[in-house]
This record gives sequence, structure tokens and C-alpha cells, in this order.
Amino acid sequence: MPSYSPPTKEYLFLLYEVFEIHKVNIPGFTQFTRDIVEPILDEAGKLASEVVNPTNQEGDSIGCLLNNGSVETPKGFKKAFQMMREAGWPSLNCDTKYGGQGLPLTIATPVGEFFGAANVALYIYNVLSHGVYSTILAHGTEKQKNAFLPKLANCEWTGTMNLTEPQCGTDLNLIRTKAFRKKDGSFEITGQKIYISAGDHDLAENIIHLVLARIEKAPKGMSGISLFIVPKMLTNENSSTMKRNKVSVGKIESKMGIHGNATCVINYDGARGFLLGQENKGVRTMFTMMNEARLATGVQGLSQAEIAYQNSLRYAKDRVQGKSFSNRNNVDIDAEPIIVHPDVRRMLLKQKSFVEGARAFAIWSSLLIDKGKLLNDQDASGLVSLLVPIFKAFLTDKGFESTVIAQQIFGGHGYVEDFGVSQFVRDSRIAMIYEGTNGIQALDLVGRKLLSDGGKHTTNFLAQVKKLGNQNTENAVFKEEFLVPLNESILDLEAALQHFMKHGMSDPETVMTGATDFLHLFGHVVMGFMWTTIAEKIYFCYPKLKDNVFYQSKISTGKFYMKYSLPETKLRLTRLLADKGLIMNIDEKGF
Amino acid sequence: MPSYSPPTKEYLFLLYEVFEIHKVNIPGFTQFTRDIVEPILDEAGKLASEVVNPTNQEGDSIGCLLNNGSVETPKGFKKAFQMMREAGWPSLNCDTKYGGQGLPLTIATPVGEFFGAANVALYIYNVLSHGVYSTILAHGTEKQKNAFLPKLANCEWTGTMNLTEPQCGTDLNLIRTKAFRKKDGSFEITGQKIYISAGDHDLAENIIHLVLARIEKAPKGMSGISLFIVPKMLTNENSSTMKRNKVSVGKIESKMGIHGNATCVINYDGARGFLLGQENKGVRTMFTMMNEARLATGVQGLSQAEIAYQNSLRYAKDRVQGKSFSNRNNVDIDAEPIIVHPDVRRMLLKQKSFVEGARAFAIWSSLLIDKGKLLNDQDASGLVSLLVPIFKAFLTDKGFESTVIAQQIFGGHGYVEDFGVSQFVRDSRIAMIYEGTNGIQALDLVGRKLLSDGGKHTTNFLAQVKKLGNQNTENAVFKEEFLVPLNESILDLEAALQHFMKHGMSDPETVMTGATDFLHLFGHVVMGFMWTTIAEKIYFCYPKLKDNVFYQSKISTGKFYMKYSLPETKLRLTRLLADKGLIMNIDEKGF
Repeated sequence: MPSYSPPTKEYLFLLYEVFEIHKVNIPGFTQFTRDIVEPILDEAGKLASEVVNPTNQEGDSIGCLLNNGSVETPKGFKKAFQMMREAGWPSLNCDTKYGGQGLPLTIATPVGEFFGAANVALYIYNVLSHGVYSTILAHGTEKQKNAFLPKLANCEWTGTMNLTEPQCGTDLNLIRTKAFRKKDGSFEITGQKIYISAGDHDLAENIIHLVLARIEKAPKGMSGISLFIVPKMLTNENSSTMKRNKVSVGKIESKMGIHGNATCVINYDGARGFLLGQENKGVRTMFTMMNEARLATGVQGLSQAEIAYQNSLRYAKDRVQGKSFSNRNNVDIDAEPIIVHPDVRRMLLKQKSFVEGARAFAIWSSLLIDKGKLLNDQDASGLVSLLVPIFKAFLTDKGFESTVIAQQIFGGHGYVEDFGVSQFVRDSRIAMIYEGTNGIQALDLVGRKLLSDGGKHTTNFLAQVKKLGNQNTENAVFKEEFLVPLNESILDLEAALQHFMKHGMSDPETVMTGATDFLHLFGHVVMGFMWTTIAEKIYFCYPKLKDNVFYQSKISTGKFYMKYSLPETKLRLTRLLADKGLIMNIDEKGF
Repeated sequence: MPSYSPPTKEYLFLLYEVFEIHKVNIPGFTQFTRDIVEPILDEAGKLASEVVNPTNQEGDSIGCLLNNGSVETPKGFKKAFQMMREAGWPSLNCDTKYGGQGLPLTIATPVGEFFGAANVALYIYNVLSHGVYSTILAHGTEKQKNAFLPKLANCEWTGTMNLTEPQCGTDLNLIRTKAFRKKDGSFEITGQKIYISAGDHDLAENIIHLVLARIEKAPKGMSGISLFIVPKMLTNENSSTMKRNKVSVGKIESKMGIHGNATCVINYDGARGFLLGQENKGVRTMFTMMNEARLATGVQGLSQAEIAYQNSLRYAKDRVQGKSFSNRNNVDIDAEPIIVHPDVRRMLLKQKSFVEGARAFAIWSSLLIDKGKLLNDQDASGLVSLLVPIFKAFLTDKGFESTVIAQQIFGGHGYVEDFGVSQFVRDSRIAMIYEGTNGIQALDLVGRKLLSDGGKHTTNFLAQVKKLGNQNTENAVFKEEFLVPLNESILDLEAALQHFMKHGMSDPETVMTGATDFLHLFGHVVMGFMWTTIAEKIYFCYPKLKDNVFYQSKISTGKFYMKYSLPETKLRLTRLLADKGLIMNIDEKGF
């Protein structure tokens, strides 16, 4: 049986020793001192490990059932969701005005990782509800806010995101779902949406679908799409009566993983809907939800990698097989735990150095979002908008890879379902696909984000990383093990940028063929930046603690990342510099 | 629904244009001209695509059932297996003396890929039977050969391989299964074996288990293990009567993939067994089977990558979504097939260049095996023994990666089970684990194979590749696109070897920490060697065909491999040159 132990200590280290959030000049932040936050994280972690996680494996093996048009979630989900709700976790960073707790995202992010690791299929019901909450908060009328937000904030009602149709995935131009204007200002929505995560279930009395559709006579293409609030149950003002809307579940998909989350075909047959945001600007309105979902998806990559790492580590310490090189002739020992073997240690370190670097990336991004929101800091918002596609794609690509490594450590035990590690592989795989495939993230990065606001945020990022890399230091080890590889990776990133600048305008395909490699190059540089930031803190702020196992381990793990993983930037650069003809010239018939 | 089209044309190209097997000086080979072999491959391919493949998806969704102690395979398996048997495919390269067809492995390899792609879960029943056949052929007494080989050759009976026990996976020292000597020379076998692929089923009337066990009072450790033939059914001389042996199925495992293959716990409760090969040399005897199984597993990696590629290619040509850059402003087109998108083409080429290079590697290895066997060519056997761990691990690591890429092209359709591509990911994952995990392959490579026979085979390999790379040519494109990158990769391999030579004797852990990276470096060089061999043939033997789509595509695909994938050798070198302390110095408590 897999288990889960919340990485609270890791987060306290990041929050109070690396990023020192209690010293950050953001309104309200100074009150979130360690003694306040530690018990919050402890409580969330306890619920995640003791209540939520035990439902995970059974949720996978049972899955969701469609019964008389309604979805039943796996045994135990209802109770666990109820307990999360009772403790107020879903509303942690929602507005107090709507019943939320008003905490910053920076504190909510660790909680998201905990629940995402403990049972990602269950947690997605929460994530999507939060996305709908944020979208209505940003774009709704006062009346809409008052009607939906108090229910959504703490998942009394849940939410979904409806973009995909059978003929329409990435390309939203192809949306066919129709909206007919009614006299009372509402709309009748008709069409079929597919792959709707958390599309139906028995965890809440109502589900608020956000649905992209075309109002009759709207222009063709993207500029004719509007966003609608379509509740499963229609209510009166005070929600005292509920009437079923014309929304039904066509089927639930059988899929590779996240079996506990109902991925539904949803049919809208003249369902009553309410315009959210401006007419024909639906895609832009939906982007509030998509951006939030992309960040949450990145955290899913991290969280699945974390629980997979924890379990593979435990296995590596428990399972005895073979002997270490130094004990090879020791006849008193039959076998040792496999953690003694170099290749197993390599696999553990690959996971550990990814997970811990990615976690720092998550906190850094959350801080930037809070700064943007609470200080109206445009630079912070701009930088995080540049980072979103990297956060989503890099953390889910590498997160999946990390779960595959964990599975490899288990050997045959990793392939059978009893040990639970196969589930982490299957559950994490979706994160590379949904909320915009990772290839789309790469195009978003090179096509939109790099040059937005005149490339200012890219320049800002480079300046921060270079400042760290170019510091004068007498610490030769820090210099050699961290600054030198960081600076090399920056050179690779700059070379890639230069290449794109040179060719981008005249020949966008050169940029497009290199987009994915560029995103990974950039992702590694961010990770190198994170590890160097961590190492700098330890070397210069806590030099006396250098013999402490925790700090020692951080330095060792960071070194491994810098010397073993980070050099991938060179390979990525080589690829993106290669002639685009390698990819574009082959005839379609030649495939 | 996924489909499968056998790559017969690809094999005919490799056999008769690249490796020119009809001109190879091996006894009997000259008769296998194209006009003889083409219909053989056509027939096998037809059966694979029309009969075997249609059972694949249902086999995955139904899986095997344990019913009153007997395993029922999924619907359709029995008939498909029967048809394979009736056409004589399992015995294709078995000895005519035992009812086989006597064809060389080089011709059997394509057939193996076809069936492995069409339904790998079903094909494994055949693969293991062939392994048992080969092991009894190599080590059995005349009586054993006569009793078992005619039944095993064509899968009238099937076979299994029993190494693993609950406490014993990689480390065979830990085997506890016991063998008690009986007066008649037979043994009573008692113990539990787990993860026995094809352990029980309804496809054949008898199953021949090869079981590693310790004879009472045998020495401790590896040198006290013997190998036994333990039939499920005991028969008299002419097999006219059958009596159940004390062999039973404890359970069938629920696993990530290959659901149609029953992975069993097998209990031996004083079962009657017969010593195979020498007493206490069981592990060595079993290596005949393991080596064969490793090659077959490499082919599984290739075959799953092939069927995944075929289906992702078909999807990329069918699915319309978005527009190509050149049509971006064309209002007459709503959307184009996604193969127009640079990132999709990149993903397709990554798969295609892997699959086609790996297929050449498979034919090259098969030829070496045939040379070793039929010409008693020790150099060929030695070289292939060096290549086996690379073939197994590189083809299964990259094969799995390739299926994951195929799944990514499908987007959301790749995550739901209807489209079948998730099955390729799940089915191919096991190949990195069984028959010795890929980490064990890497240790076998650096610890045993590199230096076997004084390093002669490594030197021989390098000499062959260098000869190709250092040729004088006036063809500037061939030189620039193939020879230059090949030569660079050879330098990386030589640098790695030098590093190992320098440190290996005094500090084996330096070699062990770098083993996996070394294996991948070596694997890429082999692939570069294959692609350059293919390109050389096309440029110099068929220059007039250069406008033909097939040959053009080969050159384009090869170029992509050389420039895009092969440079990974540098990253692998950087990693293996890194201080072993990065991996070994971190304290166990620090994980």
C-alpha cells in the first residue's frame, strides 16, 4: 500500500528560509509568520495523509459509475470531500467577502500540493470549482457573484470548464455549441461538450458549468464565442428551490488514470445559461480559468512526482536485493536495501532534485502572483504570465518522467497495481495533455509570452538570474558547483533567444520547430535559478548549519541538479538551432 | 479503433537493400532471396493485422480470469493462437529435427515484430515457449529433447520462466524454492514463484515451467541453484495420458498493461521436476533463455513503438485542428490536419527515426546471431553478446518514450481508452522492467560485456563504426549530415570508455554511477551507425532513386536522427564524467 507524508518541513524551509515571505512587503503578508502558518500546513497535511490519501487507491480501482444519468464517485470520496470542506480548505485563498479565508496563494499552494498528491482525482473537483470561482469573481456581475461565489468558494457547489467538443480540441475556432438569446436576457444553450473533468458527481448538490458557445448570428471564428454560466440545477434567489436544468451526462470516459474523477460527455439541450463577461469575448474571459488551471496542473505534476518519490524511497530503503560494492565479499550479509546501489541512488536523486526544485518554482510563482494581485505589481504579473506555460509543461513533463522513474525502482512491483506506483504514472500522464497540451504551452511561450510588453519580462527574468550568477563570492564550492553551471545554462538560453530574434520575424516556423526544446531549456534554467537561490541561502545565511543533514541534503541534491540535469540545456539548444528543414522538409507522404 | 499495418516493405528494404542477406556467406542464406521471403512476410503480416490485432484491444479491456484454479484468456485469443500455430509461425526458426521450419533468426525477427505489435500480450505466450525450447535444445538430454521439443517448437505446449520469488527479484542468490532428490532421478519441487508471465492459460494442453531451485544441501548463493523442467501435466512416453502435476496458480496479478497475458503466482507443492543441464549451474543454464528473452523484449519495445507510431500518424493526418503557418490567413480553410504543425511533425519524426533505426539494429543483431550460430563465428557471437543489454534497454526505454509521444499527438483522445493508444503506453512499460530491469542491463554492459574477451568486441564494434565514419567521400551532404555527427558521437563513446578504463579498476563505483548514461550513449551510437549505414546504401547504391518518396523519406528521417537525437551522446557523456560523489556522497538519511 502506498502512503503519503506531507512535505510540510520542505515548505516551511522555502517560505521562511529561502523566500522569507514574512519579510516580503505585501499587504497582509507580515502576519503570516511561521508560527501561524505551520499549524495550518500541519492540519492540511494531516487531513491529506490520513483521510484523503487512503481513498486514492480504491478510487482508482473502482472508478466512477454512471447510474441512471448520475455519476457516483468511488466509496470514500464523499466523506473525504466533506471533511475538506468542513475544514474550509477549498476556500483558503478565496475572498472573505464570499465566505473565503482570504489567505494569499503562497500559503494555499502547499495545501494544493498536499491534496493533489494525496488523491489527485478527488482534488480536481476542488481545483475546477476554484477556477470557476475565480472566473466569476473576475468577470461576473454583482448579481452573479452574489449568486454563485459563496457556494463555489468552499465547494458547496462545484464547477467545470467546457471547451472541448468532438471536432474541437485545441482549436477553439471550431466550437459549434449554440446559444439562443431569450427575452429575459438569459440564453438557451445547445450542443455537446466532451472530456469535461468533474462533469458530474455526487459530491455537491449543484454543478456550475462554464460553457463556451456561439450566440446565434455571432461572427465566425474565435471572435464569435461567448462564455456562459450553465448550472446543473436552477435555483431561485435564495437557493431554496432547485430545478434540474437541461444538462445531462452522455457518458463517462474510460481512461488511463484519474479514474475517481468523472470525465464526462455533457449534453446541453436548450439548457438555461447566463452570459459571463462580454459577448463574443468568451475565450478571453475563459483565460482567467485556463491560466489558473495551468498553474494548478503544474502543481499536479509536482504532487504526483512527490508521492511517487516518497514511495520509491521507502521501497528502496526496505527492499533488500544484492549488496553494495564495499560489502560484496562480506559473507555475513545476504543482501542490503537497494538504496546502496549507485543506479538506484541516481534514480532517487533525479526525482528528488526535480521535486524540490519544482516546489521552489511553485512558491516563487505564487509569490509573484500575490505581488501582482495585492500590490498591483505589473512586472510581477508580467513575469508570471511568461512563466505559466513553462510551469505547466515543464512540471508535468518532468513530473510524469519522475513517476516513471519511481516505478522503475519498484521493478516488477511497480507494474502490478497492488503497490500503487503504477497509479501515479497513469494519473500524472493526463497533466501533459489537459489545460492545453504541452506543445501548445510551448507555442504560447514562444509565440506570445516571450515578446509580450516588448520582451520586458524575459529581460527581467534574465537580469535576475544573471545577477545571481554573476555575484562575487569567495565560496569556491558555491561558485564551482552552482554559479558556473547556472551561468552556462544562461548562455544557452541567451543563444536560443538570439536565434529566435534573428529568425522569428522573417521565419516563424524556425521558432515553432524549436518551441518545445526552448520551453525545456527555459524550464531547466528556472530550476537552476531555484537551486542556486536555495544554495546561496544555505551557504550565506545558515553557514553554521552546514553539518545538519537537512541542509547538507539540500546542497547535495542541488549539486546533482546543477551537474546532472541542468546540462540538458545544451542538448535542447543544439536541437532548436538545427535547421527547421529537418522537421519541415519531409514530404507528408514520406511519413 | 487502432489498426496495424505490417511494415513488410521496411523489412524487405533492410534485408535486401541494406544488409543484402541473400549475398551474405552463411550456409543456407542464399536461398532466402526476396521472392522467397516476401510472401512469407506477407502471410505473417496478414495474419498479424487481420486476425491477431483485432483481439488486442478487447484483450486489454477483458484481461485474464482465474476460474477454479485455471486461467481463461480473453475472448479471441484461443482462435488467434490456434491460427498462428496452424500456419507454423511459432516454429519458424526451430530445428527441422523437432518439427520446426529451420529458417534463420534474421527472417523470424520481422515476424516477431509483426505479432509483437499486433498483440504483445498474446505474443508473449509464444516468446516464452520459444525460450524454453531453446534452453532445452541447448542443455537437455536426448530424452528431454525428444519429449519436449516437438511439442514446444510450434506451441502445442507452451513454456514459462520461473526465477522471481517474493523476496527474490534481481538477486538470484536469494532463491528459496527447494528441490528434493527422488530415487528415480527426478526431483520434488516446493516453493512459490511470482510474476510468471504466461503462467497459466487455456491456449495449450500443457505448460512447461523452467524453475530455478536449490537442491537440498546445495551450497549457499548462486552456485547452489539448479534448473528444472516442471510440466504442468505429467505425461507418459507418447503423451497419450496426462496427469496433473502439483503445480497450481495462486493468483493472477492486476497490472498496468499486458492484461491478456496471465502474470501468475505459481505454487509448487512437491511437484515432479527434472534437472535441466548441470546440477548447481542452473543460473548459467537459464541464461540461454534470458538472453533470448532480452532480445525478444527489445523487439517488443520496437513493436509497440511501431504500432503507436502508425496510429499517431494516421490520427495526425485525419484530425483537423488549427492551420499551418502559410495558411494562417486563408479564410477558405477552417482547419487543416495537425500533421502540418511543426511540433506535431517533430513528435512524429522522433518516433519514426527511432522505430526505423531500431529495426535496422534488430536485423543487424539477428544477422550476427545467425552468423555466430551457423558459421560458428565467435566474433559475431561476442559482438552480439556485447549488444544484447543495449538492445534490450535502449529499445525498451526509447520504445516506451515513443509510445508516450504517440499518445501526446492524440491529445485528450490519447488518454481515453477508446482510441487504444493508452494501451500501447501501458503494454510497453513492462519491457523496461522484466527480463532484467534496464538498470541491470546497464550493469551487465559495463561490468561484464565491455571487457569480455579482453575488450575485443568493444574494439571490433568501434572499428566497424569508425571505418564507416572515416570513409573518403565526395558526397558533401552525406559527409555533413551523417558522417560528421556519427564521428562526433564516436568521440563521445571513446571518451566515456577512456574514463571507465582510467577509473574502473581502482574505483568501480565511478563506472556503476555512469552505467545507465553509458548504455544510452552507446545505444545512440549504434543507432547513428545504423542510420549512416542506411544512408550510405541509398546515396551510393541507389543514387538514381533519390527522388523516390521512400528513399527520400529514409534520408530525411536519418538526418533528423543524426542532428536531433544523436547529440544526446554529449549529455550522457557529461553525466557519466561527473564526479561519482554527486550520487554516492549523499547520506541515506538525507534522501
